[in-house]
Amino acid sequence: MPRALGLNTDHFSDRLYGAIGATGTPGCVGLDPVYERLPGAVVNAKPEFGPTWAMLLFSRGVMEAVAGLIPAIKFQSACFERYGAMGLATLHQLVSVAKSMGFVVILDAKRGDIGVTAEHYAAASFDPTTEPEAGKGRVGGADALTVSGYLGMDTVEPFLKPRGDGLARGVFVLVRTSNPGSDEVQSLRLEDGRTVAQMMADHVAEIGHASRGLCGLSDVGAVVGATKSGEGAALRARMPDQYFLVPGYGAQGGTIEDIRPMMRRAGRGGSEGPMSPAAEAGVLVTASRSVIYAFEQDEAHWQAAVRSAAERFAGELRGLLE
Amino acid sequence: MPRALGLNTDHFSDRLYGAIGATGTPGCVGLDPVYERLPGAVVNAKPEFGPTWAMLLFSRGVMEAVAGLIPAIKFQSACFERYGAMGLATLHQLVSVAKSMGFVVILDAKRGDIGVTAEHYAAASFDPTTEPEAGKGRVGGADALTVSGYLGMDTVEPFLKPRGDGLARGVFVLVRTSNPGSDEVQSLRLEDGRTVAQMMADHVAEIGHASRGLCGLSDVGAVVGATKSGEGAALRARMPDQYFLVPGYGAQGGTIEDIRPMMRRAGRGGSEGPMSPAAEAGVLVTASRSVIYAFEQDEAHWQAAVRSAAERFAGELRGLLE
Repeated sequence: MPRALGLNTDHFSDRLYGAIGATGTPGCVGLDPVYERLPGAVVNAKPEFGPTWAMLLFSRGVMEAVAGLIPAIKFQSACFERYGAMGLATLHQLVSVAKSMGFVVILDAKRGDIGVTAEHYAAASFDPTTEPEAGKGRVGGADALTVSGYLGMDTVEPFLKPRGDGLARGVFVLVRTSNPGSDEVQSLRLEDGRTVAQMMADHVAEIGHASRGLCGLSDVGAVVGATKSGEGAALRARMPDQYFLVPGYGAQGGTIEDIRPMMRRAGRGGSEGPMSPAAEAGVLVTASRSVIYAFEQDEAHWQAAVRSAAERFAGELRGLLE
Repeated sequence: MPRALGLNTDHFSDRLYGAIGATGTPGCVGLDPVYERLPGAVVNAKPEFGPTWAMLLFSRGVMEAVAGLIPAIKFQSACFERYGAMGLATLHQLVSVAKSMGFVVILDAKRGDIGVTAEHYAAASFDPTTEPEAGKGRVGGADALTVSGYLGMDTVEPFLKPRGDGLARGVFVLVRTSNPGSDEVQSLRLEDGRTVAQMMADHVAEIGHASRGLCGLSDVGAVVGATKSGEGAALRARMPDQYFLVPGYGAQGGTIEDIRPMMRRAGRGGSEGPMSPAAEAGVLVTASRSVIYAFEQDEAHWQAAVRSAAERFAGELRGLLE
């Protein structure tokens, strides 16, 4: 169990640290629901309400199945956006439900634009409103957002300002992604010897320095794919205080041994601060399809199948810490 | 007037070519409406309907004011997303209105994600649906989308597949942006001597080669900010067949002389193909705040003020072609 001394929950990083510490599991379930893959029991429950209602029911069911076991949920915005306004309303409702269930919520939307536009995206992600009266009817915004840094760090900073509720949110900047084509950009070498990904990592470490929580980790994290573990240790050396959001585990082929080199060795820890080995490791590993579609052999008991898959995933992650 | 021979309107590039040719103006008005800046006559028309209704009324009014003069409209997605589901519904409605008025519509959302997620974003941008029945109630998707290439070109390709209506859409890949902080990423030099922006330009030219329309330009364009004109000629040399979407004109400080080096010198032209000097130049210059907020000295006649600003803008662009 973690000592909860010295966390400042105004910081995203401290909220994430506390949540990982409470479960002992540095993991995240990715909700990327695709209507065509949902279990029959969900699709047939109220077919007249259409795909978004089924996605709502399914996503809520997954969260119930993994609650207490997994500290964070990552929503893939695109899966909801493709259903237009109803899709976005569904996403906002689910973010609100996830928050009320105690999950740390990451919105995976990979936004990035110049200053004033970044402020609009921050408002869209962190302060969603229902209409017609702006500012009323809040349904609860995400704790963190994935962002692109190609436009430079002045486009990331607007996301770091504390919101109206006094809480700073977090970002995970795209550094090294898990898709095959990423090498042709991110692996190229600069004239100073760094790869493009390492250059991005240095920017992330620099802008993240000022927004570290009491846990020693920063509100500015990085996306580092599990399938790129050969580069994980070098990226960790450049980003000692960053949470790594690690997609690509499970269905995309990443394994637990791919995660190990990305782990943080020297946390602040010690007697003066918080200490949870799981949270101190500085990774948040995401499993999506391997958990949420685990029911495909047993549709009748889909929530139990999802729970079992989440238990396996959590067990593997705890193995990291031994 | 353009000769309209030899355009294949299944291609985005040919549709854009035709629209620029018909107006003689390689320009685009950017709709980035911010509720707090809208004219009193709009805000006070139906205050009980809230911000998104005012944005709808205003945006429609801007389009009426510039119709026939400017061939394309670029919507800033973030301005609408910040109003949640109603904001997104408003955006989709406006895209539909813009299409019915004959504009080429660009959705400026700077999306970018790995393969299957990119397909969801393509559906969200190009095939919007209203609920509850997916696939029904189409309100008309955008003709093109701005995208990030940091994740590699395999994340751009899903946007290029022709949609259900048989038409290919376009993308504008972020190459060189107009914000001050962009230099710290895009200007860095690779060990082979190219800048990061030039490397991205080469990728864009390569994947764009196969999707050229009959006009000779590609469905894969590039975003190149007007404030980076010192680099414009070198980027044009690397991307001879790309439309450059050029933001930063007007309010952000870019001038007509900044655009000139980005223009395409050698179009296909000649007797066998289409020829419009305005369309052949391969630039689509965007003005946003300098046109849509031109009413601020004269709120009572806001549409006339917007029209005058658009006429000035169009006149400046025609000066490019002399």
